[in-house]
Amino acid sequence: MDSVEALAFDVFGTVVDWRSSIASEGERLASEKGIEGMDWLAFADSWRGGYEPSMARVRRGELPWMNIDALHLMILDDLLDELGIDMLTEGEKDHLNRAWHRLAPWPDAVAGLTRLRTRFVTATLSNGNVALLTNMAKNTGLPWDCILSAELSRHYKPDPEVYSTAADLLGLPAERVMMVAAHASDLEAAQAVGMRAAYVSRPLEFGAGGQPEDVTGKPFDIFADDFVDLADKLGC
Amino acid sequence: MDSVEALAFDVFGTVVDWRSSIASEGERLASEKGIEGMDWLAFADSWRGGYEPSMARVRRGELPWMNIDALHLMILDDLLDELGIDMLTEGEKDHLNRAWHRLAPWPDAVAGLTRLRTRFVTATLSNGNVALLTNMAKNTGLPWDCILSAELSRHYKPDPEVYSTAADLLGLPAERVMMVAAHASDLEAAQAVGMRAAYVSRPLEFGAGGQPEDVTGKPFDIFADDFVDLADKLGC
Repeated sequence: MDSVEALAFDVFGTVVDWRSSIASEGERLASEKGIEGMDWLAFADSWRGGYEPSMARVRRGELPWMNIDALHLMILDDLLDELGIDMLTEGEKDHLNRAWHRLAPWPDAVAGLTRLRTRFVTATLSNGNVALLTNMAKNTGLPWDCILSAELSRHYKPDPEVYSTAADLLGLPAERVMMVAAHASDLEAAQAVGMRAAYVSRPLEFGAGGQPEDVTGKPFDIFADDFVDLADKLGC
Repeated sequence: MDSVEALAFDVFGTVVDWRSSIASEGERLASEKGIEGMDWLAFADSWRGGYEPSMARVRRGELPWMNIDALHLMILDDLLDELGIDMLTEGEKDHLNRAWHRLAPWPDAVAGLTRLRTRFVTATLSNGNVALLTNMAKNTGLPWDCILSAELSRHYKPDPEVYSTAADLLGLPAERVMMVAAHASDLEAAQAVGMRAAYVSRPLEFGAGGQPEDVTGKPFDIFADDFVDLADKLGC
């Protein structure tokens, strides 16, 4: 483990709380536009629910390469249609779509990353596109050394190209990079190309009623409660 | 000009002083290894002198895609042969090659960038590879929002793909991105894809005896004396 030089972080759910952030943006929009009777947490879940299927369509070649901003907009268009929300201008819809650029970090994220960065290169490794991740960091003070994204390989996680491209760009063999994520599938894909893996528990990602993932017995190198705990466990 | 949202910076010569940094590393190595009689500023010039020709070989397809770390090492090998320096281990040679990851910023660079970053997304846009630029920022405290590199398009500046890929990754039309460089050819190539251009004068890039570039009459949007002057001129 002493050979690890860089940490690559999943972002949605691991670093930032997409669900309550998207719901807050929805509520703000609703009060501005007089939209009533919406469950904005359910809206956030539905929007996020379109994410895996739309990436799968890109993966199967049914859609050309599109970054997450474009996929988010496609999903949003369908969702607004379905909900009968038809009064938004293109500018308002674009602003709502870019709510994903403004997601709020979990309370421990900035403090934990600030400690981790003293010893490791800290990079994003998200399906989010470079602009989204850059704007998010600027909005929230997330202290990345480097913005890496699935966009740079034109593949989506968990395709192996995403992880191997990231290690190449960091100039490191895969075993000197540790993937940090709140999702087992992401870590398993990282381990398959030779990366190390740190699981961070985010029991509130899907809300208080969400079902936390069972990672008992998974062969990850570290299990941490949050980023401060991860910094402790990595000796930062 | 008010529509500019991001600044993309050339790095070697514009942000960092490669010449005296490389010479210092050479001098340190010489004293450790007992190498005598070398002119390390001339060594820096020769190493840098191999840079354009080697990128041109990649551009013409004579070499496969290789990042700058790999090109620097190829040039260094030839240079050490030529100078009869044959006592370095592979590890020592690799450490010397990575001197480009440790280049020192010009005295105004960190202060100017810190101000510019309050208003603009600040990104590198260098022929240097992502790992080199990331390590350099970490070593020196250069406050980038985003590390962009020619490596991401597998082309070298001034190929247009480098600039258009950068604008795409920033999620901006080219005219909302301003290239900042101390070299007219870099700015002209950026303008050719629609970017704005800020020329920053670095009269000491090639030493006190170097010939400053004549940019009289060039159609750049801004001419600045350094990054603090650029921050003044951009209202930061």
